[in-house]
Amino acid sequence: MNGYVDNKEDLIKRLRRAEGQVRGIQKMVADDTYCIDILTQVSAATKALETVALCLLEDHLAHCVAEAAEQGGAVAEQKLREASAAIGRLVRS
Amino acid sequence: MNGYVDNKEDLIKRLRRAEGQVRGIQKMVADDTYCIDILTQVSAATKALETVALCLLEDHLAHCVAEAAEQGGAVAEQKLREASAAIGRLVRS
Amino acid sequence: MNGYVDNKEDLIKRLRRAEGQVRGIQKMVADDTYCIDILTQVSAATKALETVALCLLEDHLAHCVAEAAEQGGAVAEQKLREASAAIGRLVRS
Amino acid sequence: MNGYVDNKEDLIKRLRRAEGQVRGIQKMVADDTYCIDILTQVSAATKALETVALCLLEDHLAHCVAEAAEQGGAVAEQKLREASAAIGRLVRS
Repeated sequence: MNGYVDNKEDLIKRLRRAEGQVRGIQKMVADDTYCIDILTQVSAATKALETVALCLLEDHLAHCVAEAAEQGGAVAEQKLREASAAIGRLVRS
Repeated sequence: MNGYVDNKEDLIKRLRRAEGQVRGIQKMVADDTYCIDILTQVSAATKALETVALCLLEDHLAHCVAEAAEQGGAVAEQKLREASAAIGRLVRS
Repeated sequence: MNGYVDNKEDLIKRLRRAEGQVRGIQKMVADDTYCIDILTQVSAATKALETVALCLLEDHLAHCVAEAAEQGGAVAEQKLREASAAIGRLVRS
Repeated sequence: MNGYVDNKEDLIKRLRRAEGQVRGIQKMVADDTYCIDILTQVSAATKALETVALCLLEDHLAHCVAEAAEQGGAVAEQKLREASAAIGRLVRS
C-alpha cells in the first residue's frame, strides 16, 4: 500500500490543475503573450508541482518510512537513504 | 514583438513535453506507483519548467530589456524592476 | 541525543567553511569585484548551506523521526509534521 | 564602476548579518541544539544570501547590462549570456 493512498484524489486533482496550467502556458506562447506574464504562470505551475511533491513526501515519510523504521535493519536504512536522496533532488531542483 | 519570437517552436515543444510529464505523473498516482518513483518524475517536470523559464528570461533580457535600456528613462527602469521581480519569483519558487 | 551527533565535526567544518565564504563575499563587495564573480560565490555559499541542511535532515530522519515512528502515536505524528514543515521550508527557500 | 556601487553599504551589512547567522548555526550544532531549530536557521541564512544575490543581480542588470545593451554588438551579447548563466545558477541552487 502506498503512503499517499488517502490523498490520491487530491493529488490527481492538483496534477490535473498543473497540467491545465502548463497547457495554458503553451497557448500564451502561441498567442505571443508578454514574456513576464508567461513567467508568472511558469512560477505558479512550478509551485503547484512543488506542493504535490511535498504532499507525496509527507505521506511517504508518515507511512513507508515510518513502517520501515519500526522494522529497523537494512531495509529501514535503505528507505531512509532513498527518502533523503529524493529530498535532495527536490531541494536542488 | 516578443523576445522569445525566434524560440517559439522550441518553447512550445518543451512545454508540450512537460505537459506530457505531468499527465504521466497523474497516471502514476492512479496506478499506485511507488512514491519515490513519482517524486523523481515530479523533480524532472519541475526542472523542465525551470528550463522554459530561463529561456524566456534570457530572451526577454536580450530583447525587451535591452531595447528599453537603449531608450533609457522611466520605461527602462520599469522594465528592469519588472525583470528583477520575475527573477526573484523564479529563485524563490 | 541529537540525530547529527556522529556528524558534528563534519557539520561544524562545513559551516566554518561557509562562514569563510560569506566573509570572502563581503571582501569582494568592499573591493568592488565584478558583480558576476560575486554572484558565483553567493551561489557556492548557498549550495554549501543546502548541503548542511540536507545532512541535518538525513540524520534527523534516521534518528529522531525513526525513533518516534517506532513508538507511534501522537509524538510520532508531531515529529513527522515537523520534519515535513522543515522540508517545505528548504524546498521553498 | 560596479552596478552595486550605491548599495555597497547595504550589501555589506546584509552579508555581515548572514555571516553572524552562519556562526550562530555553528554554535547551535556545538551546543547540541534540536535539529529542526538548526534547520530553521539554515533556511533563514540561505534566504538572506538569496536576497543579496537578487540585489546584486538587479544592480548588475540596471547598470552593467543596460550600458552594454546601449552599445550593442558582441559585448552586449556576451554580457547578456553571462547574466543569464548567473540567473540559471541562482535558480538551480
